[in-house]
Amino acid sequence: MRTTSDLLNNSQEPFKKQYMKPFLPKGTRDFGPDQVLKRDFIFDTIRTVFKIYGYAPLETPAMESLSTLTGKYGEEGDRLIFKVLNNGDFLNGVDEKLLSERNSNSIIPAISKRGLRYDLTVPFARFVVMNQHALAFPFKRYQIQPVWRADRPQKGRYQEFYQCDADMVGSDSLIYEAELIQIYDRVFSELNMPVVIKYNNRKILFGIAEKAGITDKFVEMTTALDKLDKIGYKGVIKELLEIGISKESIDLITHILKQKNLTSIGALLLNCVEGYKGYLELIEINKYLNKFKIRGNVLFDISLARGLNYYTGCIIEVVAKKISMGSIGGGGRYDNLTGVFGMPGVSGVGISFGAERIYDVMDEKGLFPKDLNTALKVIIITYDQHCFEQGLILLNALRKENIPSEIYPEAVKIQKQMKYANDRKVPYVILIGTEELNSGEFSLKNMTSGEQQALNEKAIIDILNT
Amino acid sequence: MRTTSDLLNNSQEPFKKQYMKPFLPKGTRDFGPDQVLKRDFIFDTIRTVFKIYGYAPLETPAMESLSTLTGKYGEEGDRLIFKVLNNGDFLNGVDEKLLSERNSNSIIPAISKRGLRYDLTVPFARFVVMNQHALAFPFKRYQIQPVWRADRPQKGRYQEFYQCDADMVGSDSLIYEAELIQIYDRVFSELNMPVVIKYNNRKILFGIAEKAGITDKFVEMTTALDKLDKIGYKGVIKELLEIGISKESIDLITHILKQKNLTSIGALLLNCVEGYKGYLELIEINKYLNKFKIRGNVLFDISLARGLNYYTGCIIEVVAKKISMGSIGGGGRYDNLTGVFGMPGVSGVGISFGAERIYDVMDEKGLFPKDLNTALKVIIITYDQHCFEQGLILLNALRKENIPSEIYPEAVKIQKQMKYANDRKVPYVILIGTEELNSGEFSLKNMTSGEQQALNEKAIIDILNT
Repeated sequence: MRTTSDLLNNSQEPFKKQYMKPFLPKGTRDFGPDQVLKRDFIFDTIRTVFKIYGYAPLETPAMESLSTLTGKYGEEGDRLIFKVLNNGDFLNGVDEKLLSERNSNSIIPAISKRGLRYDLTVPFARFVVMNQHALAFPFKRYQIQPVWRADRPQKGRYQEFYQCDADMVGSDSLIYEAELIQIYDRVFSELNMPVVIKYNNRKILFGIAEKAGITDKFVEMTTALDKLDKIGYKGVIKELLEIGISKESIDLITHILKQKNLTSIGALLLNCVEGYKGYLELIEINKYLNKFKIRGNVLFDISLARGLNYYTGCIIEVVAKKISMGSIGGGGRYDNLTGVFGMPGVSGVGISFGAERIYDVMDEKGLFPKDLNTALKVIIITYDQHCFEQGLILLNALRKENIPSEIYPEAVKIQKQMKYANDRKVPYVILIGTEELNSGEFSLKNMTSGEQQALNEKAIIDILNT
Repeated sequence: MRTTSDLLNNSQEPFKKQYMKPFLPKGTRDFGPDQVLKRDFIFDTIRTVFKIYGYAPLETPAMESLSTLTGKYGEEGDRLIFKVLNNGDFLNGVDEKLLSERNSNSIIPAISKRGLRYDLTVPFARFVVMNQHALAFPFKRYQIQPVWRADRPQKGRYQEFYQCDADMVGSDSLIYEAELIQIYDRVFSELNMPVVIKYNNRKILFGIAEKAGITDKFVEMTTALDKLDKIGYKGVIKELLEIGISKESIDLITHILKQKNLTSIGALLLNCVEGYKGYLELIEINKYLNKFKIRGNVLFDISLARGLNYYTGCIIEVVAKKISMGSIGGGGRYDNLTGVFGMPGVSGVGISFGAERIYDVMDEKGLFPKDLNTALKVIIITYDQHCFEQGLILLNALRKENIPSEIYPEAVKIQKQMKYANDRKVPYVILIGTEELNSGEFSLKNMTSGEQQALNEKAIIDILNT
C-alpha cells in the first residue's frame, strides 16, 4: 500500500531525476545565525542613531525601471546593473535585425524593462520627485537595504551587499553637515570602533583651481588630489604634470595644500569667489561641530576629494584607524540630485555606511559584543518521558517570561542532549531527572563555568532574565 | 566664471537630455516612513517570538542559481520566476538555431543563469544541504525576507512581498507542531488580531481515502475537500463525482467529515494504517497543546487540506476572524524537503506568516498601536539666530538621552516652523524665544492637547523620555 510519503515522492518524481549538488551564485552569500546576529548589531546601532537624529525610514523595491537606473552611474555602472528579463514571451516582437546583429547591449531595452537596485541614492531621488507634494521639507530619510552590482567578485567585494544611507533634502542649512558628522561619530563610538572622520568642501578645491587658474581642469585635479594618501606629494605632482598643469600652478596648489590651518587657507583664497564661499561654509560647520561637542577624531583634510562628481559642497569620509581598508563611510552635499528626474534646485546632503567593510573590521578586531551568540539562553534536558512532560511546563513558563528557550525534543541519552546544547553554544542548560521532579527544584548548569545549582522555577527565571 | 555647481551640471549633461517622469515598476511599492514603522512592528513582533522559541536567523541571497529554483514550484511557478540576464556579452555563444527559432522559453538557459528568490523554503533546503555537516540538528531557523513573483499585479497581490518563515528540520518529534501552533497563537495575540488557527493531518486525509478505497485519487480528493469552506458539502460532492468517485465512497467520506470529535474519527479509521497513524499524531499534538495552555482559538478541522503536496503530516492554517481575506498563515510537516538536493529522509515542519495580508487586516481594523507614527518625539523651534544656537545645545542634550529630536534648521517665521512640526506629526514642540533664554526654561508644547509649560532641560528630558 502506498503511504502519503510515497505519494509525495511520486508527485516530486520530476525533481528526483535532476538531483544536483546545490551551490550559491558567485558573489553572493548566505548568512547563518551567528552572522545575522552580528550584522543586525551593526544595522540596529546605525538605525537607532539615525532615528535619534530625526531621520525617518524609507524602503524602495529591489527592482527599478531600467529607465530610472540607466545613465546615472556612468558607462561602467550601466554595465554593472543586473537586468531582469521580461516575463512571458520576451522575444516576441523583438526586431529581426536586432536579433540577427547579436549585439547584447542594443538588445537589452527590447527584452528587459527592469534592473536591480544599484544604490540607494537614485531610488531616493526618484521617491522624492514622485512624492514631492506629499512630503514635508526638509525631508530626512534613512534607508538600509541591499544593492546589487555585477562586479567581478573578490575578497571583500560582493554582488549583493547592504548600504545604510541617511539623507536630508530641501534645505541649504549647514547644520545638517555637522549633524551627519556627529552621526558618524556616535555610531562608530557605539560600535567601539576607532575611526578618523575627514571632511572638506568641494568649493575649497574649486577655489584652489581658481587660484591656480585651472578651473577647466578641476575634475582631473581633484582626481589626482584624492590619491594624496596613497601616492604622496610626488605622485600627485607627477599626475598634475601629466594632465598639463604648469609648474607654477602646481607650486601654488601644493602651497595651499600644505597650510596647517583653515584660517591661512581662507587668507589664500580671499579672492576666489567659490573658494572663499567654501571657506566660510567650513567655518560655520566648525562652529556647529563645537556646539555639538563631538568626542571622536574629526579632521579637516584639504586633500579629501571623493570620487563622485555630484557633490558640490561639504564632503565627508570615514576611515578605520590602524587597519588598511579603504573608506568605511562617506557622503556630502549635492545641489541637484533630483534634477535628473525633472525637479531641479533641491539641495541635500547625505552619508552612507559601508556595512560590509565595517563588519570585516569589527570581525577582524574582535569588536562584536561577546553575548551576541547567545540569542538562545537555555536548553532543557530530560532523563525520561515523565521528566520531558514536566520540562514542557517549565519551558512554557520560561517562554512566557520572554526567555529564548528550548527543550531537547526527546528524552534520549543525556550525552546526546548535552552535545546538542554544546553545538548550539547555549549559555545555560536545565537538567530534569526524577530527583528534580520530586524536589520541585531543577538543576541549572552554567555552560561557561560548569557550575550547577538546584533552584526552583522562580529563581531560574530570575537568573535567566538578567 | 563657472561655479562648482555649473561644473556639476555639465558633468551631468547626458542625464539632463533624458528628463523623465519617474515611475515604479508595476507590482512594486515604496514604503514611506509610516508604512515602514507599521511593517516593522509586524516583523519585530514575529521575530521576537521566533527567537523566544529558539529559532535562529538565516538570510539567503536575493539571487539563486536558476538550477536551484527551476522545477520546484511547478510549471506555473517556473514561469513566474524573475530571471536575471547574464552580464556582459550574453548573446555571445548562443546557438544560432536557438536564436532564429525565437522560442523565449528555450533560450532562457542560454542567456540567464540566475533568478530572484521565489520563496524562502527552497533556499532554506539548499542551505541545509550545503551546510549539513556544520549544523546541529534539530536545526531551527527563521527567515524574514522579500520574495519576487511575476504574478499579474492586483489588489493585495504584489510582485515583491515579504515572507516570514520558521522551520525545524532533523527531528520527527511532534513537539514542534505544537510549538509552531503556539507561535501563531502568541504572535497574533501580541498583534491584537483575532484569528482561528486550524490544524489537521494529511495522514488523516489519506486515511479517509484508504477507508473509501480511493487512495489513487488522494490528491484530487484533498483538492476538493480544501474548498469545503467556500463551496460547501454540495459543491465538494459535485467535484468528487466529477473526478469519478462512487456515490458509496462519497457517502463514507462525508460521514467521516461530519464527525464532531477526534475520538469518533479515530474509531472510524481504526483499520487504516496511515489514517490511524495520523489520528495518533493528532492525539499527541493535542496533549502538547494542553500542556502549553494555548489561549486562542485553535481548532482541529478535518477538511483542511492545504494545497502544497509536499506536506506529509500535520498541516496548519490561520484565518483572520470577521474579515474576508484567505489565509494569513500556514504550514505543516514535510518528510523530504531536502531530497531534491540529494539529502533524503530529513523530516521537518514549518510555518509562514503572510505579512502583507496581516498588514492589510491590521490597517483596515486600526489595530496598529497609536504611537507608531511618533518615531520623532520633538522639534525645536527658535525665534532668532541667538535662540537657534541655544537650541543646538538643547538638541544635543536631548539626543544624548536618546530622544529622537530635531531642530528647524533656520530661525524663520514661527508659523512656517510650526507648519513643519504639524506635517511631521510630531507629538511635542519646544519653543525658544528671548524670554526663554533669560529664564533658563523652555516652552514645551504638547501638540495633541495644545498644553504648554515652561520647563528646564532636565524636566523636559524626563517628560520626553517616558
